[in-house]
Amino acid sequence: MMLLKHKLRAFVAGAAMLAAIPAVAQQNTYKSDSTVIRKFYDDALTSYESYENLRYLTKNIGARLSGSPQAAAAVEWSRQVMEKMGLDRVYLQEVMVPHWVRGDKEVGRILSGRNGSQEVNILALGSSVGTGAQGLSAQVIEVQNFEELEKLGKKKVKGKIVFFNRPFDNKHVHTMAAYGGAVDQRGGGPVAAAKLGAVGVLVRSMANDIQDVAHTGNTRYADDVEKIPAAAISTRGADELSAMLKSDPELKFYMRMTCETRPDVLSYNVIGEIKGFEKPDEIIVVGGHLDSWDVGEGAHDDGTGCVQSIEVLRLLKEQGIRPKRTVRAVMFMNEENGLRGGRKYAEEAKAKNEKHVAAIESDAGGFTPRGFGFDANDEQFAKIMGWKDLLAPYGLHEMNRGGGGADIGPLKGQNNVVLIGLRPDSQRYFDYHHTEIDTFETVSRREMQLGSAGMAALVYLISEHGLNGGSAKAGK
Amino acid sequence: MMLLKHKLRAFVAGAAMLAAIPAVAQQNTYKSDSTVIRKFYDDALTSYESYENLRYLTKNIGARLSGSPQAAAAVEWSRQVMEKMGLDRVYLQEVMVPHWVRGDKEVGRILSGRNGSQEVNILALGSSVGTGAQGLSAQVIEVQNFEELEKLGKKKVKGKIVFFNRPFDNKHVHTMAAYGGAVDQRGGGPVAAAKLGAVGVLVRSMANDIQDVAHTGNTRYADDVEKIPAAAISTRGADELSAMLKSDPELKFYMRMTCETRPDVLSYNVIGEIKGFEKPDEIIVVGGHLDSWDVGEGAHDDGTGCVQSIEVLRLLKEQGIRPKRTVRAVMFMNEENGLRGGRKYAEEAKAKNEKHVAAIESDAGGFTPRGFGFDANDEQFAKIMGWKDLLAPYGLHEMNRGGGGADIGPLKGQNNVVLIGLRPDSQRYFDYHHTEIDTFETVSRREMQLGSAGMAALVYLISEHGLNGGSAKAGK
Repeated sequence: MMLLKHKLRAFVAGAAMLAAIPAVAQQNTYKSDSTVIRKFYDDALTSYESYENLRYLTKNIGARLSGSPQAAAAVEWSRQVMEKMGLDRVYLQEVMVPHWVRGDKEVGRILSGRNGSQEVNILALGSSVGTGAQGLSAQVIEVQNFEELEKLGKKKVKGKIVFFNRPFDNKHVHTMAAYGGAVDQRGGGPVAAAKLGAVGVLVRSMANDIQDVAHTGNTRYADDVEKIPAAAISTRGADELSAMLKSDPELKFYMRMTCETRPDVLSYNVIGEIKGFEKPDEIIVVGGHLDSWDVGEGAHDDGTGCVQSIEVLRLLKEQGIRPKRTVRAVMFMNEENGLRGGRKYAEEAKAKNEKHVAAIESDAGGFTPRGFGFDANDEQFAKIMGWKDLLAPYGLHEMNRGGGGADIGPLKGQNNVVLIGLRPDSQRYFDYHHTEIDTFETVSRREMQLGSAGMAALVYLISEHGLNGGSAKAGK
Repeated sequence: MMLLKHKLRAFVAGAAMLAAIPAVAQQNTYKSDSTVIRKFYDDALTSYESYENLRYLTKNIGARLSGSPQAAAAVEWSRQVMEKMGLDRVYLQEVMVPHWVRGDKEVGRILSGRNGSQEVNILALGSSVGTGAQGLSAQVIEVQNFEELEKLGKKKVKGKIVFFNRPFDNKHVHTMAAYGGAVDQRGGGPVAAAKLGAVGVLVRSMANDIQDVAHTGNTRYADDVEKIPAAAISTRGADELSAMLKSDPELKFYMRMTCETRPDVLSYNVIGEIKGFEKPDEIIVVGGHLDSWDVGEGAHDDGTGCVQSIEVLRLLKEQGIRPKRTVRAVMFMNEENGLRGGRKYAEEAKAKNEKHVAAIESDAGGFTPRGFGFDANDEQFAKIMGWKDLLAPYGLHEMNRGGGGADIGPLKGQNNVVLIGLRPDSQRYFDYHHTEIDTFETVSRREMQLGSAGMAALVYLISEHGLNGGSAKAGK
């Protein structure tokens, strides 16, 4: 292994030295790119370190909502993991985060004079106020969207629980599109309903299929609108409630939630970096978010993104690659209910006038990657397309515009940074997303590692060739 | 829905009628192809019928090894399912199949004077003889391959259990390649070992990662070589045995298996077809195999292939498509331990001089499809490549040569038939393959349905445009 690493380092260094001589250098770089990428895959597919990292994060630390002791443990754990790797620099970036706590397990119950009472699974939405210990009971009015709610008006909504029940449109091949078409209910439901005098909100869980588990997720309040309790109801529960409402429109729903928002807590983004040897001031970020919802284990969302980002650094080091540009793994804090980490990172980058060349986020699950989405200008995108043939052999076919991710979003506009999202297969994501079943066991080591290697490949290509100007040539 | 179907039928018929007028017809066909394919996906992604079929096959019938009562139940069930669909013809094709039974749950035990005794999970390989009720106990000799075994020679092998322990090469991105590099041990191990006087065989399970479950699968004997008992040992058990052998080469292994081969049993391929309206004598097959191993539920292997094939017919009917060429769904019997169904189907096709244009097999799991593999001549492959842009929007990017499947293999050479294999994502296949954990719960409805719709799309394109001669033009 030592011999191999030594040879590879010499080889890569050699290719870099030749960069000024066009024809030959292109040829060398070409070969080197493909060889280096193959090594990343060989290593990733035969290594268990990253999967064991995920096991620790999900099983030993577990769910880690911002402000929780587990979130603090995740910060310290990821710091230690990266320290142990002998990176050039590992550091924390302070960020104040919201501290919302769920309290007791929620109670959701359909109370029908005609059909009796039935328990359904609900989960308070993040940021929601509680119902008080005695709970809340009210009639239910079902709507599919905000227009329908508006039309009902104050008279029909006042004093009731508004039940947003628009399902995912399963016709979308990419489930993120289905999510995008339904999630407005979760984010905007409480404000819209409270404006009309509603006393509570139920939102159909953000899921493709019928399940017993409820899917939590954040909601929003407005300063000038009363804050009413809001919960996600499982898709099965939503179908049952909807059916019972048809036979008994007068039924009531009882919900009990003791969640509350406490004072902000000091937390951290955790950053590890390998300094670039040629252009250390040009930075490539690869990241995921360290916080997770407080149910399940935050495996696909976004434990995998974190351990994959660390794995990218390990792959570079293990294969003896000293990147031309600086590569940073960033574990962002508080993606789920505030995005404070992402915002803080971008603020500091701006304040320090750091030049970010690209930022890659993995926050769509640890499934087999299908490609990347790119938020880039024409020249940058053309350059990236020149690398297509290097990535296609590894199943990375979907190289499209429109990318990025929540945590890297605030960097947009800084120095022409290209924002990139890893695009894993999306079919199963909303089976697990924000639920108690987002656990380690649902992650395939190989699927996750294909994502790590794919990100390492892209980081390497960007580090070697840059993303502004120059030739896009690189190949097999 | 009726209106839609009516309109679509008229549209498709109209496009067919215009086929003689080049420019306009191309235009119409173009639009129609893309519209029809979109409808297949819309329908498949919002339908639960096929997934409920899989639930019945796996949960109500369960494992269904050739010759078992459950295999007979699967034949009758799939016949009834297709009868109910109102196809043009549903029929059974007689085939005599082997009848091997596992008997009691196997016992595998490492007996070390130094390290004590330890149970490990083993599963008799299909077709294996038993050990007798008292079991078999012998020293173990570990090898990685046949060359190593040959070198050891009779002296070192005689009276021992040969332990084939070459693992999957995890560097392969496609796990089928890893399987292909290891499975010779399972098929050829017993004969090679018995030739040198071994009394039994243990084969490392065909799996990518370390697991407790053992993976069964078929093995072979030769008429002139003694039949010795052969079992798969879990990958974890294999690692443990290998480690214990290092510290105690004299240890013994105890194995007890009461499996046996009984007389052949009459069984059936089950066939349902929609007659082509223009070229009824040209046949397109879409199929999977109805039998499964006797552990687990035969979900990914190959319940999904069966219900997907039936689903292709349902999609055609539901969308009001009367295909130009005859489309047949074939549930092959006995893929796992004999391939008698596949051979019988090809024999009868030859005897009746049937003209098969193409045969598509789904037997690589119900995972998100990545593309298809094609065993076709240059002209045929070029024509298929003309359809690439129609399939790429659905994630079908890997359209490569080298395809087919076990059951359709015997058709090769008949009338230039193109043999096609659905290529799903392969990462998780060997987590479940031939084990007790190949269950319904591991199948994602959406992933499976993407495969059904993809096969329906390809069947439709072949039915409309044929695969010999003519223009390959078809498009968005």
